[in-house]
Amino acid sequence: MRSTPIQLADGRELIYFDLPGDPPRQGEDTRELPPPPPASELRFDPMRGDWVAVAAHRQERTFQPPSTHCPLCPSTPEFRSEVPGPYRVVTFENRFPSFSDRTSENRIMPGIRPGEGRAEVMCFTPDHEGSFAELDARDVRLVLDVWAARTEAMSALPGVEQVFPFENRGEEIGVTLSHPHGQIYGYPFIPPNVRQILLYLESDPGAFGYRLSREQSDERVVAANEHWTAFVPRAARWPFEVHFYPHRQLPDIPALTEEERDAFAPLYLDVLRRFDALFDLPLPYIAAWFQAPVNQARETFRLHLQLFSIRRAPGKLKYLAASESAMGTFINDVSPEQAARMLRDALPPFT
Amino acid sequence: MRSTPIQLADGRELIYFDLPGDPPRQGEDTRELPPPPPASELRFDPMRGDWVAVAAHRQERTFQPPSTHCPLCPSTPEFRSEVPGPYRVVTFENRFPSFSDRTSENRIMPGIRPGEGRAEVMCFTPDHEGSFAELDARDVRLVLDVWAARTEAMSALPGVEQVFPFENRGEEIGVTLSHPHGQIYGYPFIPPNVRQILLYLESDPGAFGYRLSREQSDERVVAANEHWTAFVPRAARWPFEVHFYPHRQLPDIPALTEEERDAFAPLYLDVLRRFDALFDLPLPYIAAWFQAPVNQARETFRLHLQLFSIRRAPGKLKYLAASESAMGTFINDVSPEQAARMLRDALPPFT
Repeated sequence: MRSTPIQLADGRELIYFDLPGDPPRQGEDTRELPPPPPASELRFDPMRGDWVAVAAHRQERTFQPPSTHCPLCPSTPEFRSEVPGPYRVVTFENRFPSFSDRTSENRIMPGIRPGEGRAEVMCFTPDHEGSFAELDARDVRLVLDVWAARTEAMSALPGVEQVFPFENRGEEIGVTLSHPHGQIYGYPFIPPNVRQILLYLESDPGAFGYRLSREQSDERVVAANEHWTAFVPRAARWPFEVHFYPHRQLPDIPALTEEERDAFAPLYLDVLRRFDALFDLPLPYIAAWFQAPVNQARETFRLHLQLFSIRRAPGKLKYLAASESAMGTFINDVSPEQAARMLRDALPPFT
Repeated sequence: MRSTPIQLADGRELIYFDLPGDPPRQGEDTRELPPPPPASELRFDPMRGDWVAVAAHRQERTFQPPSTHCPLCPSTPEFRSEVPGPYRVVTFENRFPSFSDRTSENRIMPGIRPGEGRAEVMCFTPDHEGSFAELDARDVRLVLDVWAARTEAMSALPGVEQVFPFENRGEEIGVTLSHPHGQIYGYPFIPPNVRQILLYLESDPGAFGYRLSREQSDERVVAANEHWTAFVPRAARWPFEVHFYPHRQLPDIPALTEEERDAFAPLYLDVLRRFDALFDLPLPYIAAWFQAPVNQARETFRLHLQLFSIRRAPGKLKYLAASESAMGTFINDVSPEQAARMLRDALPPFT
């Protein structure tokens, strides 16, 4: 993997990631851009025990632009996008970031602090009409290497406690740009859902291994190979939810071996294609990497990927209404065993 | 308030609630209905620490029927709905319940138990085209009395640990029936978001009172009267979020005095109308009553209502994407102070 960092017109960093043999990356960002906005503000709710990022500047972010004005396509003579030239995979700091290093000390008071951290956009492919599921395994492997490199780099940034690579896919899930892309957040705290797992691991440090061995012998496995098992968890919250567990304890993406990285790509592609085959429709989904926090539980937390869809049937979505959004209790209308069966039956078995 | 309980054709209970002077409620449910489905199954995720209700029968529930076939309108000679005759306010057991008493003992094993409890539908008005905001104060007062009566009744049911009256409003939030209605859940456990508050109250039993007194002197108050204050919380997670606090500690709706009930109706109507006036559009919202659990924290938990919208601007919704859904961390694109100002400015001041 070759990386080529450049600076965008407003000072933000952009990095091209390439395979051996790819052409050198050149070109300058010639746009006139205003300076990036200041960091968001974090506010703590002691009763809920969570931080909220108030990022009012994000109201102005680019919203479903026409494909001729896609900010994630390579720039053309007609339209100068966020990426000055051709690319294979590229990451850059979000122009409307939820977290950044442009903090000011003005508003430090109890329960309020600046949204220090990092928010990056990652384009998986220059093909505007493509999708992650249509990448070839070699490009998925490159994407995984980029996640590893950015996890390492962001873990070293001041204040970052959790690095979170993710993809939101589909307008139904609120994606404002249709070009295939993901994001990477560097949170300046451990998010509640990870903290909850850490708490549990304190009393049961081997929980991930135990869960994997139980699931491997279960009817909810969707696909597996030597290094990974993809299964629908027994208490799935979403109609279609698949967790990808590596077969050994390791804290984060950088810790994956060459073999584990090679093995991930085809398995993930297989399950993504099952998602789209399910209803013969591009399935809206969230793909979320759960990594160990930068400074905690490195020996007990196990890296894994959670992939879930909000579609429960053609024309029907799972919404987070009062029970989920206010009480935190999920009602799942599809049984996990049925979801696993439907995903297994959607395509020929993975080999 | 007068209540008239009857049985529906499949044995479910329906209760008419009326004001003095309303006609007697009669009429029989003459439909042929299959027996109601068995209870859902609860599954526990030890790492997340939450129960999920797997309710596969709900996939078949009525989905956006034409208004001539609304199951919540009073029955007519042409269409027999869930409600046999005319009504003012009515509650009945959900035909596709997330929780019920139709449990079987088949599947009891570690981390799995039957979805014992209760799920009721509540029609606020027979007017199919109406909305809660268009009720008059007298009918809101009746609705509040019904919430109180059902909270008392459901609190006494075996296994129910938390009674949760709520309204989901708007297709954007997943409402499958447009007739103005809410629901009441009787959960057989304390939901995670309430449990989190209980945990905090252990170390700070006066937290609710402290928060109220701080918010009362703050720029985030939207409307208030002698018994209630409606404010946008400092760490709001949603673009437009208003909490309604009573001015004294009390555990649940039944504990409200006559005066507090009378005072709630106009205040709540005022804020609901501000919601709709904000963008001159019916705002999709969730209204969620946080009550003390049936058997815990009755002296420290304070009843309150949380009202929040997923609309952040005309044509733009707040989606729960990866940060919210996977990590539990909210990014709010509207500052709480700005939201309060917008709501105050949407209509003349509340008096």
